[in-house]
Amino acid sequence: MTFSPRTIALVEDLMRHALDLAARGRYSVSPNPMVGCVIVRDGNVIGEGWHHRAGEPHAEIEALRGCDARGATMIVTLEPCAHHGRTPPCVDAIIDAGVAHVVVAMRDPHDKAGGGIEKLREAGIEVPTGLLETEARRLNETFIHAVTRRRPFVLLKAGMTLDGKLATVTGESQWITSEASREKSLALREEYDAILVGGGTVRADNPRLTRRLGWNTSAAGWTRVILDRSSVVSPNATVLTDGGPTIHITRDADLDELLAGLYGQGIHSVIVEGGSNVLSEFISRGLWQKMILFVAPMVVGGAKAPSIFSGDGIASLTDANRFRFDCIETVGEDLMITLYPGSGELGVGSGSEPGTPARSTAHPSTPNVSSPTPHSPKPTP
Amino acid sequence: MTFSPRTIALVEDLMRHALDLAARGRYSVSPNPMVGCVIVRDGNVIGEGWHHRAGEPHAEIEALRGCDARGATMIVTLEPCAHHGRTPPCVDAIIDAGVAHVVVAMRDPHDKAGGGIEKLREAGIEVPTGLLETEARRLNETFIHAVTRRRPFVLLKAGMTLDGKLATVTGESQWITSEASREKSLALREEYDAILVGGGTVRADNPRLTRRLGWNTSAAGWTRVILDRSSVVSPNATVLTDGGPTIHITRDADLDELLAGLYGQGIHSVIVEGGSNVLSEFISRGLWQKMILFVAPMVVGGAKAPSIFSGDGIASLTDANRFRFDCIETVGEDLMITLYPGSGELGVGSGSEPGTPARSTAHPSTPNVSSPTPHSPKPTP
Repeated sequence: MTFSPRTIALVEDLMRHALDLAARGRYSVSPNPMVGCVIVRDGNVIGEGWHHRAGEPHAEIEALRGCDARGATMIVTLEPCAHHGRTPPCVDAIIDAGVAHVVVAMRDPHDKAGGGIEKLREAGIEVPTGLLETEARRLNETFIHAVTRRRPFVLLKAGMTLDGKLATVTGESQWITSEASREKSLALREEYDAILVGGGTVRADNPRLTRRLGWNTSAAGWTRVILDRSSVVSPNATVLTDGGPTIHITRDADLDELLAGLYGQGIHSVIVEGGSNVLSEFISRGLWQKMILFVAPMVVGGAKAPSIFSGDGIASLTDANRFRFDCIETVGEDLMITLYPGSGELGVGSGSEPGTPARSTAHPSTPNVSSPTPHSPKPTP
Repeated sequence: MTFSPRTIALVEDLMRHALDLAARGRYSVSPNPMVGCVIVRDGNVIGEGWHHRAGEPHAEIEALRGCDARGATMIVTLEPCAHHGRTPPCVDAIIDAGVAHVVVAMRDPHDKAGGGIEKLREAGIEVPTGLLETEARRLNETFIHAVTRRRPFVLLKAGMTLDGKLATVTGESQWITSEASREKSLALREEYDAILVGGGTVRADNPRLTRRLGWNTSAAGWTRVILDRSSVVSPNATVLTDGGPTIHITRDADLDELLAGLYGQGIHSVIVEGGSNVLSEFISRGLWQKMILFVAPMVVGGAKAPSIFSGDGIASLTDANRFRFDCIETVGEDLMITLYPGSGELGVGSGSEPGTPARSTAHPSTPNVSSPTPHSPKPTP
């Protein structure tokens, strides 16, 4: 199958639209991946769909409904499934509908799925793959990491001053970042299955740590995880008494084993919100996939004030924990800085990791500073 | 005088062009301000000019040369001078040329100048003022501060890690920021009259602290200032022995008096490059006008590692030193963050200070993240 440049541009536009459709499932589809699908014939869209919720029809089935897809081209953000799960295999429906071409952004990384592309090809359907694969991987970065590594995707989140302090020397931290940043933080919680903090943070601030915007309507639950190896959390703490779900860990758990255990409990993504020692352990161990820092334009100083990175410090710069700036946004008076592990220039992924993001193409006029990020749009009702 | 919206848009475009012309003097005009001038009749530019160097013709004179300006409109970024300095008053030349309108971006803040607008008006010329005044003030922020406050404009510059460290616990600092950031730092030196560091930095790193790109061709000199109150600098230090200009301060000088003294020596702008204690003293005393931080995507930690803000730390957030993000750029792998004193959202100036910048209009498609800054373009030969 060969495409003219004009057809390729059209198909890319349609794949971008399919990715937008997929993203509508951001707050409802978990634990499934977000998937969007467009069916087109002679340049006209004749069907489209997105996966709403686990157990409900896949995007391909939604798109096929009510259109005659014989000889048409299907554009889908994820490889159609070939297995019987909560719903019948999509590949059978696609073959039965007489679709001629299926353009796929990325293969299904899930070990239970896969094989869909091969089955379609065996049925004589042409299946080009890899169109906007980077964008598709970024969209489902938490899902891809979880199912391939069998560990939750870990987002480290912190609000800090320009000099890296999470609080003043006296422990004041509540109002470092602006209200806009705190709202953005609450929005992030809606995307993650669990909120993890250290026992010291619970003891110091007695936070609620709730998902409270009501955006997430998925079948997957959410929970709080309190990493309280030294058992400093009071039994009267809000997180232990408010009736909400909490996993309270008081044994001396190895962090990687802990993450494996959380995955075993169905937790595919974790947002780590502090404190200093917990964030630092994740950084030192390299057990994180994404970092979002809300940086307030102030300095507070104090060698004893808790920092984003605690401990004795790295002696040599060659041993420094190096990251990669991905995206910078302003949120109220603050900066929201998104980073990924590894090194490199802003927004340029190495491509070697599942879910590796690439330079954002949202604002081609400003190649060096991408904004805003694709995450956390307020969901449309 | 009333203008139609279309005329206003045209005049604004021309003022923007005049500001671009003015900026050509960035590396040559010191200690004078940058000024650009355009002369237009019936929508056609008939003359333009910019001030190249102290002692050479002003922008208005350059623009008037070789054109018949009778009845024309002059658009100029700074109030034309009415005094006899190294050159005759511009207002006389403008009146003699028969110019009908003079559109001025900002008044001359210099106490020796001023009065030009009044003289033009007395001669029957219409003189609207304030068009793109914010941009004009930003362009000459160092000049405006110096002549109104009789202190040099102080830029605090630092290269640091995400956790605010200027070096590791063992003092390694040379390679925190990328080569691109270090080049940008050298470019900044070309814009400032003096480079100031603490004695500790000289003792630790024995830096050259030279302007070495050769961009600056102005009549004004440059110098290094070593703030060495504890006399820790070796007499063999490079800055004291290389034959270049150095002001070595070993007395226990009050910082504000020190700045007044530097102004008295003709120094209109200072770039403070560290170390931790010197930067912190400028921050604590509020004796700075602009801050540029090169932030490397890494953390090194260590309570004893030198930070952007030293000392015991601020106890209460209400006492924190608060700034205002102005502009974020990426430089290689690093971020270049520009801040101003005070608080507020990115790029929104309070307008109460001389030289107060406003939201950059360079990239109207990205109102929240301005890039790049107008400073440090590589000069065209």
